[in-house]
Amino acid sequence: MELEQIYVPVQDDLNRVGDALKSISHVDFAWLAEQLSYVVKETGKGIRPALTLLPGKSYEYDLTYLLPMAVSVELMHTATLVHDDAIDKALTRRGQATINSIWGDEIAILMGDYLFAKAGESVADTRTPRVIKLFSQTLATISSGEIGQFRGAFNLEQSRENYYRRIYSKTASLFSLATQSGAILSRSPEEVVTVMKEYGDNLGIAFQIVDDILDFTSTEEAMGKPVGSDLTQGTLTLPAMLLMERYPDDNPVVRLFETGDKSNIARAIEMVLDSTIIGDCYKIASEYCSQACQNLNLIPDTPSRESLYALADYVIKQGT
Amino acid sequence: MELEQIYVPVQDDLNRVGDALKSISHVDFAWLAEQLSYVVKETGKGIRPALTLLPGKSYEYDLTYLLPMAVSVELMHTATLVHDDAIDKALTRRGQATINSIWGDEIAILMGDYLFAKAGESVADTRTPRVIKLFSQTLATISSGEIGQFRGAFNLEQSRENYYRRIYSKTASLFSLATQSGAILSRSPEEVVTVMKEYGDNLGIAFQIVDDILDFTSTEEAMGKPVGSDLTQGTLTLPAMLLMERYPDDNPVVRLFETGDKSNIARAIEMVLDSTIIGDCYKIASEYCSQACQNLNLIPDTPSRESLYALADYVIKQGT
Repeated sequence: MELEQIYVPVQDDLNRVGDALKSISHVDFAWLAEQLSYVVKETGKGIRPALTLLPGKSYEYDLTYLLPMAVSVELMHTATLVHDDAIDKALTRRGQATINSIWGDEIAILMGDYLFAKAGESVADTRTPRVIKLFSQTLATISSGEIGQFRGAFNLEQSRENYYRRIYSKTASLFSLATQSGAILSRSPEEVVTVMKEYGDNLGIAFQIVDDILDFTSTEEAMGKPVGSDLTQGTLTLPAMLLMERYPDDNPVVRLFETGDKSNIARAIEMVLDSTIIGDCYKIASEYCSQACQNLNLIPDTPSRESLYALADYVIKQGT
Repeated sequence: MELEQIYVPVQDDLNRVGDALKSISHVDFAWLAEQLSYVVKETGKGIRPALTLLPGKSYEYDLTYLLPMAVSVELMHTATLVHDDAIDKALTRRGQATINSIWGDEIAILMGDYLFAKAGESVADTRTPRVIKLFSQTLATISSGEIGQFRGAFNLEQSRENYYRRIYSKTASLFSLATQSGAILSRSPEEVVTVMKEYGDNLGIAFQIVDDILDFTSTEEAMGKPVGSDLTQGTLTLPAMLLMERYPDDNPVVRLFETGDKSNIARAIEMVLDSTIIGDCYKIASEYCSQACQNLNLIPDTPSRESLYALADYVIKQGT
């Protein structure tokens, strides 16, 4: 199923989220308006807002709370990307030049802060201390996870457990905020909040594994950023870890991290593609997706529940 | 009156705020704990937490809400300093090396984000959507103000109005958050919330004017950072503006901004000190302090109200 079909139960409201995101560029200062409208121009696939709204459809779906929450989750995501790009000195994102590459790191830092602030204003509009607290805890998880990733860059001594913890912090925690807050704000029973947390946690991990796979298998056109970015940044992802496990004696990832010789990146990608590693990674991602869906039968059988199943399916089919 | 005496009505609770700030470094990751404990080691004079607690003393003083608010305000302040130092490439702050100078800009960005997140968790603990919203709005004001300051650097065409707007964003907005939230969380009548907003707005402007004066009149030892930093960063402050107004034809600030020749910084400081400019700036700051206090008579006559008067007095006496 395509995203378009998956989003059907909440499509009108996702459009409202898109409008609300664009409206943050309506500010008095012309230069700030220009930068903001650039930031929100390409807002990605909207998976995080969808993950906020879809769980709501099975209970008391009230846009008064769900709309600002969905906006908030997407703004927090955008803010973290703006800071990540400054940290990684990335030149392109979603096919367009990054804020740091156009206006410099200083503006990227402040623009990210401004977006966090707007995300905070939006989550405050839910008037629900529990999700507001969860929102801030998630930001703490994301930023401490990024600190860990940055400090661990070019470090070969990393366990798989460390990898899963890292991608939980970086991606799954925000998916989990989206699904949990959707459940909480629609007054779902507590056990359903737990089910939606499990869904978000596991789907987020699967999503990031697939993203890490695509950094080996995709093209710059399709991704909107260069392939091999993770290795360039010294970030060990699942495919690179499997490559190291399988070829411990003579390995381009080890050579890259030890010598900094970038020619090893193309070699690593080639070796990964020539092996069964990609298939094995998809298998692991697929297990996380099954895990994500395992208790969805506890929520009412609605079109939005079908969308949650379909979304899990969609995540592991990306790029295959 | 010294700060110590001014703080008497809330001193025990300011110690609790200090303990809570230090406790944020209790995290599992050793390197994060190390960085955090470094960040909260030198926490300044505690004027913002005091501005949160003091207004509460005249009404329903409940630490359940006021304590996390005071912690939140100080954490937000610390987070903005960490980012500002990265932007300004500052080497020292409060007499110790900055995060960016020790661990690099990347860690400074992420550490600032982490501190924003902890500030957000803390404000969520007030369980009061109104102050939570105000908190996020303040962060938006601060960061958009910083964007304006950064974009306006080395620009000679700036009005005094622009200066006041800039220092409102940068400093007074946070003072105002502190005093307003203190009033709101202690269930003060609405007119008192307004009085405390006026107090915070005006005291903050006075405080920043004095800070800008000290950048001309103080010493590196006393300030914990080099004198003349504002001119070095291309930031026009009140003393520099008055100097330009008085010596329009041959002015070191104009030469500095136009040619980048740093020898003009010492010359500008010398000319300011040889004129009546410093006295005139203190006079303006003093008017803002009077403005701050003008409606304090509407709140009950308590020792904490005396402290608010005394604090306004203290602000304009700094460095004189």
